[in-house]
Amino acid sequence: MTTTIVIFGASGDLAHRKLIPALYNLYRKKRLEDAFHIVGVSRTAYSHEAYREELRGTTQEFSAETFAQDIWQPFAEHIWYGAGDAAKPDELKHIDAFLSERENGSANRLYYLSVAPGLYGAIITNLGQLEMAREGNGWRRIIIEKPFGVDLQSARELNDTVHQSFDESQVYRIDHYLGKETAQNILFLRFANTIFEPVWNRNYVDNVQITVAESVDVGHRAAYYDRAGVLRDMFQNHILQLLALVTMEPPISFNATALRNEKVKVLSAIRPIAAEDIVRAQYDGYCETEGVAADSQTPTYAALKLYIDNWRWQGVPFYLRSGKALKAKTSQIRVRFQRPPNVMLSLMDDDSCTPNTLTICIQPDEGIHLNFQAKQPDSSHETRDVDMEFSYRRSFGEQQIPEAYERLLLDAINGDAALFTRSDEIETLWGLIDPILKPALGSPLIGSYTRGTWGPKEAEDLLARDRHVWRLGCGPDGTG
Amino acid sequence: MTTTIVIFGASGDLAHRKLIPALYNLYRKKRLEDAFHIVGVSRTAYSHEAYREELRGTTQEFSAETFAQDIWQPFAEHIWYGAGDAAKPDELKHIDAFLSERENGSANRLYYLSVAPGLYGAIITNLGQLEMAREGNGWRRIIIEKPFGVDLQSARELNDTVHQSFDESQVYRIDHYLGKETAQNILFLRFANTIFEPVWNRNYVDNVQITVAESVDVGHRAAYYDRAGVLRDMFQNHILQLLALVTMEPPISFNATALRNEKVKVLSAIRPIAAEDIVRAQYDGYCETEGVAADSQTPTYAALKLYIDNWRWQGVPFYLRSGKALKAKTSQIRVRFQRPPNVMLSLMDDDSCTPNTLTICIQPDEGIHLNFQAKQPDSSHETRDVDMEFSYRRSFGEQQIPEAYERLLLDAINGDAALFTRSDEIETLWGLIDPILKPALGSPLIGSYTRGTWGPKEAEDLLARDRHVWRLGCGPDGTG
Repeated sequence: MTTTIVIFGASGDLAHRKLIPALYNLYRKKRLEDAFHIVGVSRTAYSHEAYREELRGTTQEFSAETFAQDIWQPFAEHIWYGAGDAAKPDELKHIDAFLSERENGSANRLYYLSVAPGLYGAIITNLGQLEMAREGNGWRRIIIEKPFGVDLQSARELNDTVHQSFDESQVYRIDHYLGKETAQNILFLRFANTIFEPVWNRNYVDNVQITVAESVDVGHRAAYYDRAGVLRDMFQNHILQLLALVTMEPPISFNATALRNEKVKVLSAIRPIAAEDIVRAQYDGYCETEGVAADSQTPTYAALKLYIDNWRWQGVPFYLRSGKALKAKTSQIRVRFQRPPNVMLSLMDDDSCTPNTLTICIQPDEGIHLNFQAKQPDSSHETRDVDMEFSYRRSFGEQQIPEAYERLLLDAINGDAALFTRSDEIETLWGLIDPILKPALGSPLIGSYTRGTWGPKEAEDLLARDRHVWRLGCGPDGTG
Repeated sequence: MTTTIVIFGASGDLAHRKLIPALYNLYRKKRLEDAFHIVGVSRTAYSHEAYREELRGTTQEFSAETFAQDIWQPFAEHIWYGAGDAAKPDELKHIDAFLSERENGSANRLYYLSVAPGLYGAIITNLGQLEMAREGNGWRRIIIEKPFGVDLQSARELNDTVHQSFDESQVYRIDHYLGKETAQNILFLRFANTIFEPVWNRNYVDNVQITVAESVDVGHRAAYYDRAGVLRDMFQNHILQLLALVTMEPPISFNATALRNEKVKVLSAIRPIAAEDIVRAQYDGYCETEGVAADSQTPTYAALKLYIDNWRWQGVPFYLRSGKALKAKTSQIRVRFQRPPNVMLSLMDDDSCTPNTLTICIQPDEGIHLNFQAKQPDSSHETRDVDMEFSYRRSFGEQQIPEAYERLLLDAINGDAALFTRSDEIETLWGLIDPILKPALGSPLIGSYTRGTWGPKEAEDLLARDRHVWRLGCGPDGTG
């Protein structure tokens, strides 16, 4: 059966940079059915040809390594353009007519909401009212980009709106972090190996650090960002998703229900985050950015400590941090194990040094680092820190690591929702972040940090209280 | 106080290739006391100067990277030569007088027995009867080279002889394998790290393979070798020592008593090896070697399976193999873990492939390899074998890895017997090997294997009965 992929927001950045290149690469790898249409929808006027031509240029730019004109040409014949405002029922009705005309009978449809979040509700409602979500002559699915709501209440309202038009089984809330190979590899590391799982718990793990650092500042996204802040932009989705993958119990299978049940279960076990366990800060000069309120209290950096109250993790602190304008771009998860009993060898007393750490590097250098102790050669009893390393790129070659969107689009087309966020999951995520979006009443004004550093001193203090330090297990320069 | 190192067998290979270069390097690193003598003793006539000159040449050859004339010169002034047959009391008495003259008062003495094993008894007895083992004016220690006996009874007799002249605390039975950095590092890997010990037992380990393979044939050692065979030459010492390091319980400290107690304990828990669990073979052409009996039944290769009956290891098979004229030179210990439960991912069914393995490479490339499963990029649920690697040389640099004898000589001078074999330990080792030195009565003649292969088919069959295969975790080509 024909499958139609309808991209709402077809003239936008995401469509050009990610979605079309991903679909092109799926086509190139012969992973799309022969019969498919890609229909771009936005308010801009384009001819089919003009749209294809524009996409050719951007795909060539953003998928330079794999672009080939003789593959693009037959691929582009599947691309169509429909001008219209999908938030207006009558305009969407025209688009539906165009889709039906193209499909000429039964067809599956994947709607991709790549529009401003303020339009989600209207388009979803219209899709429902125009019966464009009704299945029977093929499936209907919808991919909804983040942010999904701006707090718990708005997320619930949006879920209600979605469920008036779509059954939950039709809904694919996307977080592209989950489509990254390294994020998925967390589950493989844990559950395709025997040796990690036995030590992956409170008996052996001392603490876990998750760092998602950006070196760029808010740039042209300032107006959006000043309303969102780092807790919405990074914690509610990426970081807590990584946390869930690292901490969840083994699911009974890799299907969407089993996997998401476990994620919701572990997220639900997170203890409400204490006010004193959160640090918020802005990089210096943030308030002078165009689009940012002069007295903005929006954090561009946050660090927090949380606990998971279940059998596996109770008592193990999880330290999470993310920010903009930091020293380097890196995303990593660092699992620090407890010290071995110091009964036999000259282990170093420096708390930061001796214990084993396993670091899962999400970006930029995807891989796994295991730091352990070996004998210092030519000594009798001295140990020394050494590294074992697995590099995704060195092992598999650059070409083989696909963009996250490629995997996620294919999964949605194949009806596999495992890497997408379920309604109860997204509400659980918001339920964790919502109470800490604003500082407690009477708190001092937000602090600041120097651009190009690893954040404010208060974040160091947060760990110092527990006699820990922030540390990178891989990337930039191994410290931080 | 002055320390005198007396090398019996001073004109031999070991002194030239290993002992003097090791002492030279200890001197170069300023690890020897200022006041020391090295006195070479053998029946050959040398002047002090001629002996020094000969050693200069061999040290330059066998320690080429660190040899420097301006270090050698002051070092060589500590070297003396005493001609005489130490197995003859009156000649040894002359040597003792020469030593006393050099020492000119109280001094420590380290005797190094680097002579034919047939002379051990006589020299040790003479040392005792001439009171050269008596302490009071400095300590007296003796390093005894392997082989220490040729079976259990001869080892016991030699121990009795030794103990008539020396207290056990004065005796240092050497196995240079234990002085190798990588052999020592086994203990550091296990006990300076948190993450390995929890899985280092029958709950997680499926089987352990130890391979000590030589590519050379018996060469000029044929006459000796044909009396010894691989079980005496490799199993009774090196391989069982490696096994003990891999399997022993954590000692309460790194001192000689604690460490050797644990080694004896685990060696004592080895179940007597069943006749059907041993494979013996000769490489083709062995019997045509000069010095080898034409109808020799001496194995140049053996493989065996054994079990350790204690809480940690019961039920885990240990496969040990060693031989000459094999495909490549390598010594390694490969710990294969159990398969993870196959509930979630597409684990490969090939038994040899999916489970984690940790390989400790002793030589030629000292290091540690961890083989584990990662996600096959651009697939949904497929796993792939990948390697994490720690290379001693890459991490520490070639220069820093000293020869085993350097460490062992220094330990003996410092009175640290941890890496030397105690009398009960050596008898336990012989107790394991003694019963399997000869095939059962009525067994067929010894089998053969082709030079340059990994040994006889019967060794493959030994593992195949348990549905296993021999496999290398590092080095030559990763197979075998």
